Parts: sequence; structure tokens; C-alpha cells
Amino acid sequence: MPITLWRDLRAATLAGDAAWGAIDNACLVVQGDRLAWVGPLPELPREWASRVNDEVHLHNAWVTPGLVDCHTHLVYGGTRAHEHELRLQGVSYEQIARAGGGIRSTVAATRHSIESHLLKHAQRRLAQLKADGVTTVEIKSGYGLDLAHERKMLRVARHLASHGVDVRSTYLALHAVPPEFDGNADGYTEAACQWLDTLHAEGLVDAVDAFCERIGFTPGQVTRLFQHAEGLGLPVKLHAEQLSDQGGAALAAEFGALSADHLEWLSEAGIQAMAQAGTVAVLLPGAYLTLKDTHLPPVAALRAAGVPMAVATDHNPGSSPALSLTLMMNLACTLFGLTPEEALRGCTHVAAKALGLHDRGRLQKGLRADFCAWDVEHPRELSYWLGHRPLLERVHAGRADGRLPA
Amino acid sequence: MPITLWRDLRAATLAGDAAWGAIDNACLVVQGDRLAWVGPLPELPREWASRVNDEVHLHNAWVTPGLVDCHTHLVYGGTRAHEHELRLQGVSYEQIARAGGGIRSTVAATRHSIESHLLKHAQRRLAQLKADGVTTVEIKSGYGLDLAHERKMLRVARHLASHGVDVRSTYLALHAVPPEFDGNADGYTEAACQWLDTLHAEGLVDAVDAFCERIGFTPGQVTRLFQHAEGLGLPVKLHAEQLSDQGGAALAAEFGALSADHLEWLSEAGIQAMAQAGTVAVLLPGAYLTLKDTHLPPVAALRAAGVPMAVATDHNPGSSPALSLTLMMNLACTLFGLTPEEALRGCTHVAAKALGLHDRGRLQKGLRADFCAWDVEHPRELSYWLGHRPLLERVHAGRADGRLPA
Ligand SMILES: [Zn+2]
Ligand SMILES: [Zn+2]
Repeated sequence: MPITLWRDLRAATLAGDAAWGAIDNACLVVQGDRLAWVGPLPELPREWASRVNDEVHLHNAWVTPGLVDCHTHLVYGGTRAHEHELRLQGVSYEQIARAGGGIRSTVAATRHSIESHLLKHAQRRLAQLKADGVTTVEIKSGYGLDLAHERKMLRVARHLASHGVDVRSTYLALHAVPPEFDGNADGYTEAACQWLDTLHAEGLVDAVDAFCERIGFTPGQVTRLFQHAEGLGLPVKLHAEQLSDQGGAALAAEFGALSADHLEWLSEAGIQAMAQAGTVAVLLPGAYLTLKDTHLPPVAALRAAGVPMAVATDHNPGSSPALSLTLMMNLACTLFGLTPEEALRGCTHVAAKALGLHDRGRLQKGLRADFCAWDVEHPRELSYWLGHRPLLERVHAGRADGRLPA
Repeated sequence: MPITLWRDLRAATLAGDAAWGAIDNACLVVQGDRLAWVGPLPELPREWASRVNDEVHLHNAWVTPGLVDCHTHLVYGGTRAHEHELRLQGVSYEQIARAGGGIRSTVAATRHSIESHLLKHAQRRLAQLKADGVTTVEIKSGYGLDLAHERKMLRVARHLASHGVDVRSTYLALHAVPPEFDGNADGYTEAACQWLDTLHAEGLVDAVDAFCERIGFTPGQVTRLFQHAEGLGLPVKLHAEQLSDQGGAALAAEFGALSADHLEWLSEAGIQAMAQAGTVAVLLPGAYLTLKDTHLPPVAALRAAGVPMAVATDHNPGSSPALSLTLMMNLACTLFGLTPEEALRGCTHVAAKALGLHDRGRLQKGLRADFCAWDVEHPRELSYWLGHRPLLERVHAGRADGRLPA
């Protein structure tokens, strides 16, 4: 396996106890898709120095782990740009819903789209995320809402994995009740459990999610799904406490959930349950901003309880058409009060933990060679600038995009 | 002069009465730095068709006027990323100010920077704005606060004009009282008027601005400066009503100001005065967001009164480190309730008006050939996506950046 030495760089390894895990005059030895060695260049062991096939000089740029976007709905038909315009022209949410708008319009457009069309559009959006440093992305189903169309979405997610990024796919049939099950959410939940068997057998599912909310699914319905997922050995996560406190986070924690997401209305009991279960809190400032929410997630209490906090785009066509994870880092600081270091950790190793991945998110020997070089004076700038695109180079599984001039 | 035909495009001309001034199957004839003809391709007059030297096909992409960022503080030394981090770590504004932080730190860093250093850093920031479609940018002085250093900033602004973008430079000595004039804002105002004579004679000033606020300059001091500017024949603009109602907008309107900017606390009297004077309202959602402001500018009243509304980045290292004008369009919609079309007009012909420029900002025969091609299905998407960078090609004064594959 060829060995590449990345040098003349400063590393925010996020490993060890130092702030940012910072190492000056650092180097990374990449062997295949792994980091074989990370540390100060003067300490590079001879065994590695002598085996290097190629060197890349980064002119003192900062290098961080590749970004992990751990909550997206990236695959869908259509956009909701027209609704965005109608709303701003004064048309009410109700009027738009009555005219077939809202999530139902995305479900209809997704059902009507062929796989190659969904793939093409998701690729364009994924390209924007990658241009901002993303090397691993989670993608949820949930606009198909029947077996065939949920399968189609999950297959597109799997296909996207061949485009220089790792993809984790999450089954989110309990996103909304489809027209076929109008008024029968219980019946729909049963059907969704059966479809899960099939899709899991087809190897399309990495985790199971649901939308627990007054306008979504009840804790009882979520429990039914999570028990089923447990039986299949699949990890769970939950859209919880976005618009009201349903006790969703505590329920998720009971099932040892990887994450509970949104959490604007999270209670102290929910925080304690998450802390005990090691469930990650995924914060989604793009949706908070777009929905003009004013009820903040309890960041100080999460921090005090030691609940790890991730930050994600929640990319979706309705409530968060976000295409930049560094912008979410800025918003997590500005709106939610995360520190810049928390924001970066929230988009790297904590986000990886929210996906059950422990082989990435830090710059450390033995972990995946997923990293980014940035045109900044310090990694705190990643959350300082507003609408910046400072990516110099992105490396996924040891392979560079080739953005740098040769 | 060579003549280029841009074709296979959809144009949001912003001219005429149709929504977006939209033209399907449009073409643009570019002669030198001007638009020689704009319209549907089938109606292209023979006299032009026969004289075309070169054709560019845009594959049905949308073309808009080049973006105009009409309010920035793009030239400065240092950043305030460290303060951003300290604040989020819980250090108060007061503590930071006592430690020499805030605007004083930027003044010190700017004074200490040599011209080439200021230029290099401003160029990097300008490159981000250009990558987002900006073809004209306004840049204010105001971190020098004495003759030599205000001159240095304005000279850097002039130098930036040779980098594929038009620059308008604004003298903003009344931004803060420098240490030399501590407690003597009146004396400083007098000095600033004298420096203006010199800098105007040197050809460095296109307009004059001030910060009218309890923590800035009084209406009386602003009046003194504006009278002086009037005597020199220079147009004025004003940072007004950002944190409180000082009657600044009405004062600016009295002087026929090009614009009054920020305006969160603008009164009905201020709106009427602006409407009568034809003064543009420049809205700055990046600062509103970053400062966690909750007092909205009176957009509905401005609209009702017929006051034209522009949108700008207010790029500065403290309250708005914004580097994307399309992101400001999104925020102007989400936070302030502009329609997507108002947001685009606010970053094109209305922004140009706020700079006293009437030769750009629409796609119209005889105007400047400043335009952008975008990878969107409709121009409303420019304010729909959050953190998108959909620019396909940027043309400034008839010259393309060359982003498109040949
Ligand atoms: Zn979601
Ligand atoms: Zn300003």
C-alpha cells in the first residue's frame, strides 16, 4: 500500500486533552485509507519516514478531521422553493397545505421520481456538502412512506456512497402518515415495521429513526417501531422534542439510542436519561433558524450533564435547505452558544458517535484517513466567518479530491 | 470591439414590469463592457446576429445581474475570531473591551498593518464575495481614524478595483472616536472634516458615511460632517437607527443621502423622510443575526411607503463576518420577511442606487455587462438554499471569470 506523508501543517486532532488537540508543525502518515501515524514532524519515527512514497506540503494550513453530517434528508424529489416564495408573499402555511404543499408535496414528488433522477439531484446537493468538507453523511428515508418508495430512497443513499463520501442510511418511515393510511397511524406503524424487515434483509438500513411529535407519531407508536428494530439488532435514533416535550428523548435513551435530535423542548429528565444512556444530542440550528424558532435547546444543561452535542445540517427541502456544515457550526455558536471547539467536535467525532462510528472524527493513528485542510489562521475561524468556504483540500479514505494546485 | 453572444439561458433581467423581469430562451449581446442587446433569442436583430465574434451557451441556466454589495468594511487588520471564541467561552463584552478588544483592537491592528498586508487579506475576503457573484462592492474606511491610516484604507480599497470587481470607497472616519481624541468627539469631528478635504483632493473618496448612535456620533456631529461633504459635492449615507432611534434616517434624508443603513429602530417619521428624499434603506441581516438582535427593521412599512430596500453583508470583523451575499438574501427573507424577488433586487439595482450607480443592476441594453449565471431552477432559489454556492459563471465589465468548462 502506498504511503503518503502530509506535512507542513498544523493539526486540530481533537484527540488528547489539549485545546483542539492542537499540534504545531504536525504531519500525518496515510497508508491506504488509514492514518498510520500522527504527530509533530520532528518526532516522525524512522520506520515511517523511510517508507514514504509521496509527500504533500500544506504550507502551514490547519488540518481537521473530515466533517460528519449526522442528520440529513438529502434524497427527495422537487424542492420547496416555490412554497418558500409563496410564504414570503404572504400565503399562509394552512393555505399552502390545503393546496397540497408541505411534506405531502415532497412525498408526491419523491414517489414520482425515478431512481436516477433522485440520484442526480442528491449528488448536486452532496457536492455542496463535500465542497464544505463533509466526508461522512447520514441520509434518512421518509419521503416514500411505502415499501417501494422507501426502498428507492435507501438505494439512492447507498449509491451516493460511491461518490467520495461515506453514507449511513437511516430508515425513517415514521416521518409522516401517508394518504393511504390517513387517520390510521397505528396501522401505518405496523406496516412500517414489516417493511423494515424486508429492507433490512436487503442490506439497506444502518439505523432506524422516527418523528415523535404531536403532529408526528406518539411515544407508543415509536416504542412499537423501536422494539421491532431492537429485534433486528438495528440501532435507533429519534426526532425528539422539536416542537413540544413528548418525553421522546427519554424514550430513545431507554432503547440506548445513538442520538436524539432537535431537542428544543428537552426536559431535565430527558437530559439525565440521555446522559446515562450515552445518547448524543444532535443540534440542528438550520431548522431553528428557518422556522424562526425562539425556544432554545438547553445547551448549558446538556453540557453540565456531560451529554455529547453534535451539530448537523438537517438538510431537507422544507425546514432546513442547508448546504454548508461550517455555516451550521457558525449558527450553533451564534444561536445556541456552543464554543467554536464544541462546534467542530460536534461535526466530527461526536457526529460520528451519533452514527455509531468510532473509527473517524479525530486525527489519530489507526483511524480513517478522512481529513480537511483549511485556509484559516485558526480552527476557531471555521465557526467565525458567516458563509465562508475556506476548504483547501478534502481527503476521504486516504484519497484527496485534488483541489490543491499541484 | 469584440462582440459576444450569451445564449441558451433564462434571464431574470429585473427590468420591465413582469415578475423578475423574466425572459425565457433569452440572449445577451455583450460589446466591450456593455450590454448591447438583451431579449428573446428569436428576436435578436440581424444587425447584431451578423456581427457576433463569439458565442457562449449556458444550457438553460438562469442569468441575473451581477450582485452589488453596497455596505462593507472589507479592509482591516487582524480578525476578531479570538474574541468570538472568548465570548462563547463566557467572557463578557465588557471584559473583552477592558482588555483592549472590540473595535479598538481592529483599529490598532489596522494601523499596524502595512498597505500590502491589508491588501492581501482584503483580497482573500473579496475572492469569497466574488465566488458568490459580487461584481460591485462598496468598502468603507473607519478603522484608521487619523489621516494617514484612513488614507491607507482608502488606497487599499482603490487597489482592489483592479481585481475583477468595481469598488466604491466611502469615508467613514466618524466610525469611532480614536484614543487620541478620547472624550473629545467634537474635536475629532472637526479633524475628520479637514482630513476629508485632503482625501477627496487625492481622489480617494466616493461618498461619506458616519455612525449615528448613542455609542457613536450625535446628530449634531453628523450634521457638521454632512455639511462639509455637501460643500465638496460628495454624496452621503448613514449608519442609522441600529441600536436606538436617533432620528438619523430623517437627518440623512434631509441631506438627500444615498442610503440609511441598519434601521432596526427606524420610526415612521424616518420612513416618510426617506420616501420623500428617495433614500435607499440598506438592510443588514448578518449583523442582526450575529448580534442576536430581536428588534426587526420595519420592512412592511418601508414597502408600504415605497422606500427601496437593499441588502448587504455589512462585512466587518466584529458584528458581521459575512462572506456570502446570497446568504444575506436568505437571511433577509427568513429574518426580515423580504420576498425572494425583493432580496435579489436588493442585491442588484437597489444596491446600485444606494451607491449612486444607475448603469448596472439590471440586464438592459446600454447598462454594464455585469452578470452571473447560476445553477438553479429558478432565481427564487438564490434565497431558498442556506449556505449554497450555486455560481456557474461571473461576468464583470464583459469579462468572464472562466469558471465554466470550455
Ligand atoms: Zn430531520
Ligand atoms: Zn457598517
